[in-house]
Amino acid sequence: MPTDEDVLKAYETSKGAIEIIPKVKVDSREDLALRYTPGVAVISNAIKNDKSKVYTYTGKPNNVAIITDGSRILGLGNIGPEAGLPVMEAKAMLFKKYGGVDAVPICLDTQEEEAIISIVKALAPGFGGFNIEDIESPKCFRIVDRLSKELEIPILHDDQHGTAMVAVAALINALKLAGKDITKIKIVINGAGAAGMGIVRLLSYMKIKNIYVVDTVGAIYDGRKERMNEFKQEIATLTNREKLQGSLAEIAEKADVLIGVSSAGVFTKEIIQKMAEKPIVFALANPVPEISYKDAKDAGAFIVATGRSDTPNQVNNVLSFPNIMRGLLDSGAKHVDYDMLYEASKALAKCVGKELGVEHILPAPYSAKEMIDVLSSVASAVAASAIKSGNSRHSELDISAIKKNAAKIIKREMKLEKVATKTQA
Amino acid sequence: MPTDEDVLKAYETSKGAIEIIPKVKVDSREDLALRYTPGVAVISNAIKNDKSKVYTYTGKPNNVAIITDGSRILGLGNIGPEAGLPVMEAKAMLFKKYGGVDAVPICLDTQEEEAIISIVKALAPGFGGFNIEDIESPKCFRIVDRLSKELEIPILHDDQHGTAMVAVAALINALKLAGKDITKIKIVINGAGAAGMGIVRLLSYMKIKNIYVVDTVGAIYDGRKERMNEFKQEIATLTNREKLQGSLAEIAEKADVLIGVSSAGVFTKEIIQKMAEKPIVFALANPVPEISYKDAKDAGAFIVATGRSDTPNQVNNVLSFPNIMRGLLDSGAKHVDYDMLYEASKALAKCVGKELGVEHILPAPYSAKEMIDVLSSVASAVAASAIKSGNSRHSELDISAIKKNAAKIIKREMKLEKVATKTQA
Repeated sequence: MPTDEDVLKAYETSKGAIEIIPKVKVDSREDLALRYTPGVAVISNAIKNDKSKVYTYTGKPNNVAIITDGSRILGLGNIGPEAGLPVMEAKAMLFKKYGGVDAVPICLDTQEEEAIISIVKALAPGFGGFNIEDIESPKCFRIVDRLSKELEIPILHDDQHGTAMVAVAALINALKLAGKDITKIKIVINGAGAAGMGIVRLLSYMKIKNIYVVDTVGAIYDGRKERMNEFKQEIATLTNREKLQGSLAEIAEKADVLIGVSSAGVFTKEIIQKMAEKPIVFALANPVPEISYKDAKDAGAFIVATGRSDTPNQVNNVLSFPNIMRGLLDSGAKHVDYDMLYEASKALAKCVGKELGVEHILPAPYSAKEMIDVLSSVASAVAASAIKSGNSRHSELDISAIKKNAAKIIKREMKLEKVATKTQA
Repeated sequence: MPTDEDVLKAYETSKGAIEIIPKVKVDSREDLALRYTPGVAVISNAIKNDKSKVYTYTGKPNNVAIITDGSRILGLGNIGPEAGLPVMEAKAMLFKKYGGVDAVPICLDTQEEEAIISIVKALAPGFGGFNIEDIESPKCFRIVDRLSKELEIPILHDDQHGTAMVAVAALINALKLAGKDITKIKIVINGAGAAGMGIVRLLSYMKIKNIYVVDTVGAIYDGRKERMNEFKQEIATLTNREKLQGSLAEIAEKADVLIGVSSAGVFTKEIIQKMAEKPIVFALANPVPEISYKDAKDAGAFIVATGRSDTPNQVNNVLSFPNIMRGLLDSGAKHVDYDMLYEASKALAKCVGKELGVEHILPAPYSAKEMIDVLSSVASAVAASAIKSGNSRHSELDISAIKKNAAKIIKREMKLEKVATKTQA
């Protein structure tokens, strides 16, 4: 891990993680006439006459805005839009590097729900999709639901959709190693924020029923009065059929899988020791997990995953948002749905082949070779789902082209990145 | 000039003019830990503790949003935000190519004044400046005035500020060739939109008083009742001391300079024939000027300039917005003022050296060599003005560094552009 001083120095030198460059040549009077006035007026007129041509003649089909209000940045809480900017810049950088997506950080100076919704709607003409990021729950759910209903471009909610997709992919592979059947196990999720909600919704889409969600008050059950809202009520309806009450320690007894999407240090060794045989523990709080990799293993966990890059099995959203968005954009998807995410999870799980092992349940998010495979597999799976469901601007699509394009995208970005970093002022 | 078919084909292939790329290297587990979680949390915390550090650790100081509502795109009128997008993409491309500025097109799906103001204010945390573009007048003036008052980052209004800066630079050089003194001539401006207003304000800042502005109703004068508003009243106060009434033809008699910022074909040969000796005619309507270059010359004009690239003396805003914005950002200017623009005009005029002639009153906007000189001269002039006036986040600045940086910026962009265009999918 780099020291704080190293980090500050690196960012002071780079001043951000992304830049915007021309992708067309302008070297002559003719080029300028083509690419600026009067040439560009021809394009404006074409779009005026047929608004759908904005997808043909502009960058819209590859443009995404990453929207935050700074109300829940990483695990740091409500630290404001300026403090959120470096995180959005990092995501924009990774969107391009691993997905070929042109992403713009938009950090809003308002945290008012209706204002955020109307601003995002007003920004829509120039973007092919939005990624809603690090907005506190349950506000984020209402914003994502409203935007999904009121816009015809996909609204990805990485905290919800992306985390769920990677966690379920990790779960598929972990269960394969443990020799357990996902329909016959007990899953306990600690945390009912965006990630917890996404995992519940995705598992429910997969018809998994034996799920229990615990928040700071205890188990969520249908009929609970304390600290409920419409989204926790949805969780209560989808999980905990027996309406069990109790603490995390009580609910986690005999669980096969314990997933933490909560906060640092809340899993004890005792909790893990009382789980079922071959316990699978995902401690995903960031940057400090619910229990350290080592402590969880010492307590007898069969497979452990965390959000950290310094121990095995990193559940990192870079394995999801760039490639899901690539699939959404390439298929002209109008909305995000859980069939896409389930197909994406299965595709991501399959990217780990013969190297599958208790210390390798997910691809390495920094290996260009593995990331090409991830992009190719996941983007095409998402696109195929969008086309199949009819949830798309297109009625058919060459899925094999999306598969093949992945290597081209990632290799091209590596070339550009090299020139950009080598020539920096 | 390219045919419409050529233009459509070129844009369909490129799908826009810009892309967003990583400017930092991420090749390893360590890189990812530095540039994404957990490293980026160190930066978020630093900015949370001192908001001004967003200028130290992020791209904000070099980020600009180009804002339009599509209500007056080029000379095409109110054609909407989607049809405005290709124009904003072209400007973003030129912002980087000739100014090193990272510019994002933002095309708003609302044309309501208060909504536009509140959206732009909400976008401010991530941007070091805004460029307000192709919004109809007089709404654009109210938006620019309000944003300039309510935000502490520069609001460039290219239609007003940029056009005025280039037109006055062209005027300085034209008068040098005509051997006329700017304080002793009669200037007539046809058109009272953003460009007309900008030229009046800039000439007034230069203490030029013998100016007349004509709109579709006729001469603007203090006391006119028809089609006035607070901004035309400002023009009436700054110009036409004799409160002359009359048509364009009447007002333009004996004028030394006639500037059109209006619409196609409204200047006749007769009007030019009745001007003073050595008439200077700028016909800047785009893409079709108030009179063609040839007709104006045939009518006896000494120097003619238009907005077109296919005749001499192109008054092209690419000579202004990238380099003015560079100067604003480098100096930490909090606002745009007319001293900066006057210094910029003089600097741009001086970029034409011994090649100055009736067919060469401005630098060629597509020559890398000339554009390096333009960026170096204008950006440093704007920055020096900002520092001198105290209108800046910084109290001192190495102006020579800004001068020297210009070549580095433009040569670096040429390299990136080459890789980007060569490797395009």
